[in-house]
Amino acid sequence: MLSEFELIDRFFLQRARQARAYGRAAHLGIGDDCALLSPPAGQDIAVSTDMLVSGRHFLPDVDAIRLGHKSLAVNLSDLAAMGATPAAFTLSLALPSAHAAWLEGFSNGLFALAERFDCELVGGDTTAGPLTISITVFGHVPRGQALRRDAAQHGDDIWVSGNLGDARLALGLFRNEWDIDQPAATLLDVRDAMETPEPRVKLGLALRGVAHAAIDLSDGLIGDLAHILRRSGKMASVNVDAIPRSARLAAQTTQIQRMCTVAGGDDYELCFTAPVSARGRLKDIAAESNIALTRIGTISDTASDVATQPGTIAWVDAADAPISLSLTGFDHFE
Amino acid sequence: MLSEFELIDRFFLQRARQARAYGRAAHLGIGDDCALLSPPAGQDIAVSTDMLVSGRHFLPDVDAIRLGHKSLAVNLSDLAAMGATPAAFTLSLALPSAHAAWLEGFSNGLFALAERFDCELVGGDTTAGPLTISITVFGHVPRGQALRRDAAQHGDDIWVSGNLGDARLALGLFRNEWDIDQPAATLLDVRDAMETPEPRVKLGLALRGVAHAAIDLSDGLIGDLAHILRRSGKMASVNVDAIPRSARLAAQTTQIQRMCTVAGGDDYELCFTAPVSARGRLKDIAAESNIALTRIGTISDTASDVATQPGTIAWVDAADAPISLSLTGFDHFE
Repeated sequence: MLSEFELIDRFFLQRARQARAYGRAAHLGIGDDCALLSPPAGQDIAVSTDMLVSGRHFLPDVDAIRLGHKSLAVNLSDLAAMGATPAAFTLSLALPSAHAAWLEGFSNGLFALAERFDCELVGGDTTAGPLTISITVFGHVPRGQALRRDAAQHGDDIWVSGNLGDARLALGLFRNEWDIDQPAATLLDVRDAMETPEPRVKLGLALRGVAHAAIDLSDGLIGDLAHILRRSGKMASVNVDAIPRSARLAAQTTQIQRMCTVAGGDDYELCFTAPVSARGRLKDIAAESNIALTRIGTISDTASDVATQPGTIAWVDAADAPISLSLTGFDHFE
Repeated sequence: MLSEFELIDRFFLQRARQARAYGRAAHLGIGDDCALLSPPAGQDIAVSTDMLVSGRHFLPDVDAIRLGHKSLAVNLSDLAAMGATPAAFTLSLALPSAHAAWLEGFSNGLFALAERFDCELVGGDTTAGPLTISITVFGHVPRGQALRRDAAQHGDDIWVSGNLGDARLALGLFRNEWDIDQPAATLLDVRDAMETPEPRVKLGLALRGVAHAAIDLSDGLIGDLAHILRRSGKMASVNVDAIPRSARLAAQTTQIQRMCTVAGGDDYELCFTAPVSARGRLKDIAAESNIALTRIGTISDTASDVATQPGTIAWVDAADAPISLSLTGFDHFE
């Protein structure tokens, strides 16, 4: 049995030192009391943190490589939503036991994604405990150009990238929530959506100077869009039937489709607002990045009545008829 | 029962917004996908992260206020060891359930310390799960002035602040590891040492330009000093009887005293090296900061034989006679 220090050294410190070859963020990397970072001139450091807990954010039998990928991906997704360039991250890991094979898989999945985005491991902590992964990620963004949640404007289109709802469909299938038979291939496909989300980093960078407000969809569209609306003091109208979804999700009942697309969570697509004048530019960005961008609604100023308070979303269907959705965003304690 | 978002809002977001009054680090604080930080001109951002797990880093019945304090204190201690000024932190929290009274205590202990050090909460994550606290802390340090682990030089004195070993004594008493009776007052005193460590931030700042290498003592002197030695390519001689300890620890057997002072862990004092010429200045710093500083040994260059490889510590007693210590630093998986 390798000791804690030997395991950390083998699977994380050595990899982190190799990563100094592509890392450009840190004056001092892993191995001291602190790492030392500084942003390029005129840029800020964007910071975000996400914690993943076994049985809550991933199935207990998840493949270690996929878990390593997802742990960093959900954090990179926050950088994408700010329009920030990934630079570095710290990793804290609580493990029930220190198994070399598991740690090798986890670190392989983690560093494969880190290397793709030139994101250097600069610090961390490892301890015994129930399997928990906490990552804090750092990016660079030119001052004043970050995509903030409070920047939505009256008349903005509301856009989302990719498809929504597959991760929630997967979770429902694995939990047997719905009385539906699925071919094994569908199960595998949606499991990919749940376990190996692709952070929309390049899209986020392309949206700087084009989009107004942005957020990444981690807790479900209904809750995450409301964050933009409340911070911007705006309301929205959203066409629930326009929300992009995969063919496999479109084959389910309307109820399942709406639950998954509207309140699903774990999508890690971007939701952003942009002026109507940006539609042409966004068509180009979609083509250049090879990521579908779909218009699903409109931002508007609020009125003085309760039904149009900041944060309100008026849902309509494809025929523009109002519909009532009793779904709420994902709440970890409900 | 309050929802996750309501609890976060009440005990963390509102406090974080109040903290913007003293916070100076963030252009954009809590509530977006990322916070935006930038260091003052000519300074780096020092980053460190520590994770605390119930039953491992704290007793399951620990008072919530004390746990809030300790969670941030152990992170601030890393900034102290770099000579960095605290600026901001992120908090990730996994909770078995969301109890308002517990969260109120925890946030009170956390923010009381944060406010004392002008350290602003700029982001975080809350989820259901086994009680786990992960904090990443940010400080500022003028470029080139950080107290690194790799800067120890031949002939340096080795110093430690405060007393070592009380936290380990407390743990042993609460675990009934040793067949000793203790008056209740001693139990309470050492429990304070274990649960409310004081991060040596001001001392760390005073040591800039005076000390060579520094580290904070979290895993035990024997392991932490070895980090300095290996990174600096040096060895050390340490007088085990010179290690400062409280009167209550000095009243225990020699074996308990040595285990607690040498391999105890959880001290959160600073261990640093400094040239002999700095002794006068360090006496002044001790007086100004009202923190005892004690010389416990000497750094030296290594020779070519195995017994003096980098990282080696030669332990001697008060009579300068070599002694053999079979203790090792704290390993979370042993």
